[in-house]
Amino acid sequence: MDLTESSPAQRTGLLNAIADELTAAADELVPQAMAETGLAEARLRGELKRTVVQLRLFADVCAEGEFLDVRIDEADPGFVLGPRPDLRRFNLPVGPVLVFAASNFPFAFSVAGGDTASALAAGCPVILKAHPGHPRLSALTAEKVRGALLRAGLPAETFEVVFDQEDGVRLLRDDRIAAAAFTGSFEIGRMLAGIAAGRERPIPFYGELGSVNPVVVTPAALAERADEVASGFVAGVSGSAGQLCTKPGFLFLPDGHGLARTLGSAADAVPGHPLLHEGIAAAYTERRAAVLAAPGVAVLAEGAVEAAPDGWCRATPTLVEVGLDDLLKQRSALLDEAFGPLSIVVRYDPDRPDLLMDAIGRLFPGALTATVHSAAGENNEWLRRLVALLRERVGRLLFNGWPTGVAVTPAMQHGGPYPATTAPATTSVGTAAIQRFLRPVTFQNCPPELLPPALRDDNPWRVPQRRSAAGASVNWGNPVS
Amino acid sequence: MDLTESSPAQRTGLLNAIADELTAAADELVPQAMAETGLAEARLRGELKRTVVQLRLFADVCAEGEFLDVRIDEADPGFVLGPRPDLRRFNLPVGPVLVFAASNFPFAFSVAGGDTASALAAGCPVILKAHPGHPRLSALTAEKVRGALLRAGLPAETFEVVFDQEDGVRLLRDDRIAAAAFTGSFEIGRMLAGIAAGRERPIPFYGELGSVNPVVVTPAALAERADEVASGFVAGVSGSAGQLCTKPGFLFLPDGHGLARTLGSAADAVPGHPLLHEGIAAAYTERRAAVLAAPGVAVLAEGAVEAAPDGWCRATPTLVEVGLDDLLKQRSALLDEAFGPLSIVVRYDPDRPDLLMDAIGRLFPGALTATVHSAAGENNEWLRRLVALLRERVGRLLFNGWPTGVAVTPAMQHGGPYPATTAPATTSVGTAAIQRFLRPVTFQNCPPELLPPALRDDNPWRVPQRRSAAGASVNWGNPVS
Repeated sequence: MDLTESSPAQRTGLLNAIADELTAAADELVPQAMAETGLAEARLRGELKRTVVQLRLFADVCAEGEFLDVRIDEADPGFVLGPRPDLRRFNLPVGPVLVFAASNFPFAFSVAGGDTASALAAGCPVILKAHPGHPRLSALTAEKVRGALLRAGLPAETFEVVFDQEDGVRLLRDDRIAAAAFTGSFEIGRMLAGIAAGRERPIPFYGELGSVNPVVVTPAALAERADEVASGFVAGVSGSAGQLCTKPGFLFLPDGHGLARTLGSAADAVPGHPLLHEGIAAAYTERRAAVLAAPGVAVLAEGAVEAAPDGWCRATPTLVEVGLDDLLKQRSALLDEAFGPLSIVVRYDPDRPDLLMDAIGRLFPGALTATVHSAAGENNEWLRRLVALLRERVGRLLFNGWPTGVAVTPAMQHGGPYPATTAPATTSVGTAAIQRFLRPVTFQNCPPELLPPALRDDNPWRVPQRRSAAGASVNWGNPVS
Repeated sequence: MDLTESSPAQRTGLLNAIADELTAAADELVPQAMAETGLAEARLRGELKRTVVQLRLFADVCAEGEFLDVRIDEADPGFVLGPRPDLRRFNLPVGPVLVFAASNFPFAFSVAGGDTASALAAGCPVILKAHPGHPRLSALTAEKVRGALLRAGLPAETFEVVFDQEDGVRLLRDDRIAAAAFTGSFEIGRMLAGIAAGRERPIPFYGELGSVNPVVVTPAALAERADEVASGFVAGVSGSAGQLCTKPGFLFLPDGHGLARTLGSAADAVPGHPLLHEGIAAAYTERRAAVLAAPGVAVLAEGAVEAAPDGWCRATPTLVEVGLDDLLKQRSALLDEAFGPLSIVVRYDPDRPDLLMDAIGRLFPGALTATVHSAAGENNEWLRRLVALLRERVGRLLFNGWPTGVAVTPAMQHGGPYPATTAPATTSVGTAAIQRFLRPVTFQNCPPELLPPALRDDNPWRVPQRRSAAGASVNWGNPVS
């Protein structure tokens, strides 16, 4: 059997088999991940669990069959535009997918992560470019995936891993690759997107390029729960050393917020946490220095980045504060994502919401998330305008929480306008992610014996089929005589 | 009221108002279209009817509300990965859309055509770049659309038309344009796609770049209905002077098909038909000469392209025949789309189906359509392999018919892998086209009073809402302890 031709039930079997293999290998995988990433055991066990749940969720998506979007228009001799043929449309796998793994989620966005799960669920063979930050873990995980392929009766070539950067770029140019998915930095993502668009036959490139995730706190919310906001913010900035694409990068607080000392001491109390690899340590050191050197910037918690004798470079949180005016003036120094435990508090004048809106509109054209902290029951023109402004700029708009947790569910959208992603109409987390690896095709007047199973009237795969019956078709008389 | 914020019911009103305006103006619009395009009255009345039906179909799509894809995951404290927040996801309009009109469908793919209808249905303001082939008709149609906007209480800026080529390119680079749609030639489409991808903020570019639409006739089908195949083919090649992106460009017939004379005389009997404009006449003249000059090509019907005293350049069908070997050798001369009434019959050896498959696989990486003519009940390994090969390369696979009619229905797919389109996951005809102009956004823990109407529990717009209830969420125990 071949994955492209496999039934949804066979794909369910494959995805559950991968989940089983990973579950059984947890005590082998987690220590390897700790050794290569410096992330904490609890965080990694949680991430592996999420990865397993993700695979089982896509197994369920396959079992339901809704993703095939089967539409059957019965032949209709009386259709308003003249006889309509029998039309049957469904989603095919787009073809072999190239996935670029991320460094900061060595399970959930790596070898057996979300992109792999959704591509396999769609019926696409996967070639995964491993991240150099965790090569041994990648090889070990790939072994488990291959074990599952064998158990599911699929050829080993259904899933392959390459380790070399040059191989990744060469494959992105290969005519046999039909789509690519990437999670990583803006610079690399934009470069790869250019290669995908410049091929002789361009292909879709689904890049998640990171985000600065602004958070706006209203004066009423601050009056209601200043301490909760402060502690939640510091936890969000410092968790996993801030190496998350959903880290809150900007916190907008009203003038005279009085939280400077609370934030500073909460951040100072956070112990050092290893950075994932040398490249990230170098880039973070540089970004942090640029932010600290920008005019108008006041330090709330200086933090540090220090190489330790054990080989890890550890960081403690850096929090700074700046006025809205200075943020606009210093945007070139302050606005880029700092991938690490740094965040910027921005003071705004609560009596001039227009200035805040204008700045947000200009500074954040696209982000994975934005967050609003409002008071219970707060509802006014100002707040409604803020919500309307932010929703145009993000994939997910949160209220009274922090963006760092991303639920893996049907209603999740992990995406957003450029520069957060290169494909704002799609998501890389949640069940809707499968749509990135599908392509519709219509069969017209196909003899029943040549129809694919999903389109047959006897529906052997038992997938949902949306039918437009003859006669029941749209008919508004004879609009143009 | 603003289109972006409008309810689906308001959009239904707008689209029906445009349909009403066009219907009422038929006797003004059709003569203007005849004067500028040279297309026949019956064809243009049919096309206007189709355009009106298209608008009413999208009005119905709005009324149903399924396109919003509302998903509500209720908060779930017992979710397998820890407490899950309240998540509500739906599709927002992507923003202002730039539509490039086509020359060959002055109604259905022009000012008030499919792209305009689906973008307005999605809630996106439209700027339309008119085709220089029918500027007066474009201005007249735009007037009718503006009349409908006024009736629907929407600002006139919701829909604007520009006529200048340079304006189109400038707008494609404008940061306020969020997506672009195009129907036209491969060269222009690829150039515009490059501009869209190379912007500081790249945007989706939905280009339909034309197609050569191969048709394969099995020996059994030929034995069953040779005359029917011949007359259907000539009608498909010559209708509207072959100026259709779905014109059958290649007809694969088994060796010794015996149809040369029938095809030739049927084609010779077709009267001359005006070409749309000088640019098309010049390009067609050049392509036709290249095909006729290619080694190995035999002429079945020579046809002609001739400028007439009335100012129109008229064409009669040109049919040629070539063996499979020569087609492979002369691919650079023969393979590009000839936009006009020219088609190429290709002889294949029915005892070597592998050679046919191999050639099709190499010659046609992406097409809007492919067609198979088989005999009643025919079903064999050869045919199944052919179907499997073709479906990977097209948006629509037809049986025992001709690709030139494109039904406007839920199950239509008018698209296909590159080079047929720049966005193989989407369609430009049928109700699924609305998906190109939508972008999902998730609201997390949003206070009820700040939720958009589509996401509210009281559902004031009465749109379909897919709910995942708390507790009913996926749960496979505790997969990683």
